Amino acid sequence: MLQSKLFTKTRKEAPKDEVALNAQLLIRAGYIHKEMAGVYSFLPLGLRVMNKISNIIRHEMNAIGGQEIFLTVLQDKNLWEKTDRWDDGKVDNWFKTKLKNGTEIGLGSTHEEELTALMRDYIRSWRDLPVYTYQIQTKFRNEARAKSGIMRGREFLMKDLYSFSKDEKSHAEFYEKAKQAYVNIFNRMGIGEKTYITHASGGIFSKYSHEFQTTTSAGEDIIHICEKCHIAVNAEIKGEEIACPICTNKDLKQDKAVEVGNIFNLGTRFSEALDLTYQDENGEKKVVVMGCYGIGLGRVMGTIVEVFADEAGIVWPEEVAPYRVHLVSIGNDKEIVKKYVDQLYSKLLEHNIEVLYDDRDVRPGEKFADSDLIGIPWRIVVSEKLMSEKMIEMKNRKTGEVKKMDEKEMLKCLKI
Amino acid sequence: MLQSKLFTKTRKEAPKDEVALNAQLLIRAGYIHKEMAGVYSFLPLGLRVMNKISNIIRHEMNAIGGQEIFLTVLQDKNLWEKTDRWDDGKVDNWFKTKLKNGTEIGLGSTHEEELTALMRDYIRSWRDLPVYTYQIQTKFRNEARAKSGIMRGREFLMKDLYSFSKDEKSHAEFYEKAKQAYVNIFNRMGIGEKTYITHASGGIFSKYSHEFQTTTSAGEDIIHICEKCHIAVNAEIKGEEIACPICTNKDLKQDKAVEVGNIFNLGTRFSEALDLTYQDENGEKKVVVMGCYGIGLGRVMGTIVEVFADEAGIVWPEEVAPYRVHLVSIGNDKEIVKKYVDQLYSKLLEHNIEVLYDDRDVRPGEKFADSDLIGIPWRIVVSEKLMSEKMIEMKNRKTGEVKKMDEKEMLKCLKI
Repeated sequence: MLQSKLFTKTRKEAPKDEVALNAQLLIRAGYIHKEMAGVYSFLPLGLRVMNKISNIIRHEMNAIGGQEIFLTVLQDKNLWEKTDRWDDGKVDNWFKTKLKNGTEIGLGSTHEEELTALMRDYIRSWRDLPVYTYQIQTKFRNEARAKSGIMRGREFLMKDLYSFSKDEKSHAEFYEKAKQAYVNIFNRMGIGEKTYITHASGGIFSKYSHEFQTTTSAGEDIIHICEKCHIAVNAEIKGEEIACPICTNKDLKQDKAVEVGNIFNLGTRFSEALDLTYQDENGEKKVVVMGCYGIGLGRVMGTIVEVFADEAGIVWPEEVAPYRVHLVSIGNDKEIVKKYVDQLYSKLLEHNIEVLYDDRDVRPGEKFADSDLIGIPWRIVVSEKLMSEKMIEMKNRKTGEVKKMDEKEMLKCLKI
Repeated sequence: MLQSKLFTKTRKEAPKDEVALNAQLLIRAGYIHKEMAGVYSFLPLGLRVMNKISNIIRHEMNAIGGQEIFLTVLQDKNLWEKTDRWDDGKVDNWFKTKLKNGTEIGLGSTHEEELTALMRDYIRSWRDLPVYTYQIQTKFRNEARAKSGIMRGREFLMKDLYSFSKDEKSHAEFYEKAKQAYVNIFNRMGIGEKTYITHASGGIFSKYSHEFQTTTSAGEDIIHICEKCHIAVNAEIKGEEIACPICTNKDLKQDKAVEVGNIFNLGTRFSEALDLTYQDENGEKKVVVMGCYGIGLGRVMGTIVEVFADEAGIVWPEEVAPYRVHLVSIGNDKEIVKKYVDQLYSKLLEHNIEVLYDDRDVRPGEKFADSDLIGIPWRIVVSEKLMSEKMIEMKNRKTGEVKKMDEKEMLKCLKI
């Protein structure tokens, strides 16, 4: 992509009402645009990051047998009354609206009800189980306050997988697989080291549910970490002494963290209320056992920004960066420079490297500042002076290391 | 994909309240699920078709310089008041809801307001123009009636591109490019022959706007076609004698059609109301000239079903089919058959052919009926008898032609 063609530009300041670091940086760098508190549009760079995140998630969900679907935003009140979650007194973050004929409908904040009802058309016998389905779709939550940027939105993209199993044993086996898939996802996104499987209160069906918590000063939760086991306990769990569930160590490190994912045993809470049953091997009627497994895409993106950003701007891990290389040309107005950088750009594209090419006619200082703010992992600088030495300059955004090298070494650096 | 793993199943009957042929077939074949009138979920097969359609559109939009973004559903009332489109008396298909603090917000049915306001951050000078941005995103329209299946939904996926140009001349040049991109899109989707650029009323800024109308008995519009010029006029244009805008022929053929796409000159309607201006080459303040270019993805999918379906079910054109090949195994319970079909399945996958493999243990008649209903372009049948002849049987869903051939000829048929 030629930066001169990209319609977004960097900004010195974020909107005054934006208090979250992640949104401040993402707005200043042109990734997102704030429409209202907790409601953000994704601009070309931001959408690229979201697609990278989606694709990692998709890959791991498909690998454990997930079938992708796309449910609706508009929700049928009748279904939610059956599970007793329609009343604003019970669920306090509904957005509701009305059809022309006065029928009340809701905007989905989650999809247990709709999907459980849908599955009644397809699950009849033990032969139809298990089923694992997921979607990546926009959800709505009428948050009273929305001050965490894209980490807690009123409208946000979410991946939610739902599992349907014939019994607790079969459910438990999949639950463990899903847990491992989540570990893979956060590793691939570059936040694995800072992300802890965290034991939280389990609700009705289990002693624990599992959250994936990433440590950051922007976190709204407090977790107690056992570094030895790379595991944590959520401080919300009351009424028992906090200890590592693996090694029983009680000397845990307290830290602020943000919940980037969670997995729940739903038991038969929804299948019973909505009558999702099947005939087992003996012809007996049984209730389907369910689980749900969520990841907020915007929350992950915001967390990555919070975790790695430095004073100069955003620092993307390679797998979620909008581009891998930021090719910065100094003196692009000179024919000899432009010709060479154009060639280098083509060469990188031929090697399937995603490149943002800063071909703009602005001062070097401005280019470097923008490059740091945007946070692409590798910055390659070409100038007439460097050309005379048959060199380019390569900067690793994460380590800050700057090195002169020839083209061959550059390709090696990019693992080509 | 193994059909035994696909959670959807075909159904003999669609829901009784479903009157549209497209939705009846898509529900029966397991592509979509009806949540309420005009609100449909997309199941694995349906989502695959939607992704095929999206990718064709994306490719053509990128080719004319479109930059993909993702705007929000939730809409700020203040913006819509400025363009006088908030009042239910003016725009009668709003879904509206409220924030916790009582602030009224809307659910976007289109995005001129939000995007025009957003562009004020990025368009300042003539150097910043033109800009072309598009999104593929869920839209909401509170239709009084919704009886056309996925051809007219209350919630639906839409591609909308918006162009921002410095003057009418520059706008007109892009408008022509977009028109050609639309022609490419409908050609690639297999409905090019039945789709006519149709002159419709233009509103304030132009004599005409342009619709893309596909002829089908399910259409809600009447168009007058000049077959010679492959062009049409919408019957809605009043007060003038209907004639071909190219050859002036007045002997036009009347037909029912559905609007699968439209392109509009918006002039300065939105940029003036929302103050989207720029400094021209002489330092003078000018108002940006806009256009918008829409395609309803569900509408296209529904139209394709309506246009090609026969008595046995859906007939997908190759480029939008969920899979290219439906591999149907007869006698999969026999080891020798299973082994061979498994190998054939792997071979097709190695050649990057998308295959749905019917490995289910059901009667051949049921498999064939399901295959016709689902409508995948090529059906390949393997049975013990065919194996003894070293043959497979290949059916072209569109022509109905069934032919015995060996593996080599089969690969040739699939252009491998």
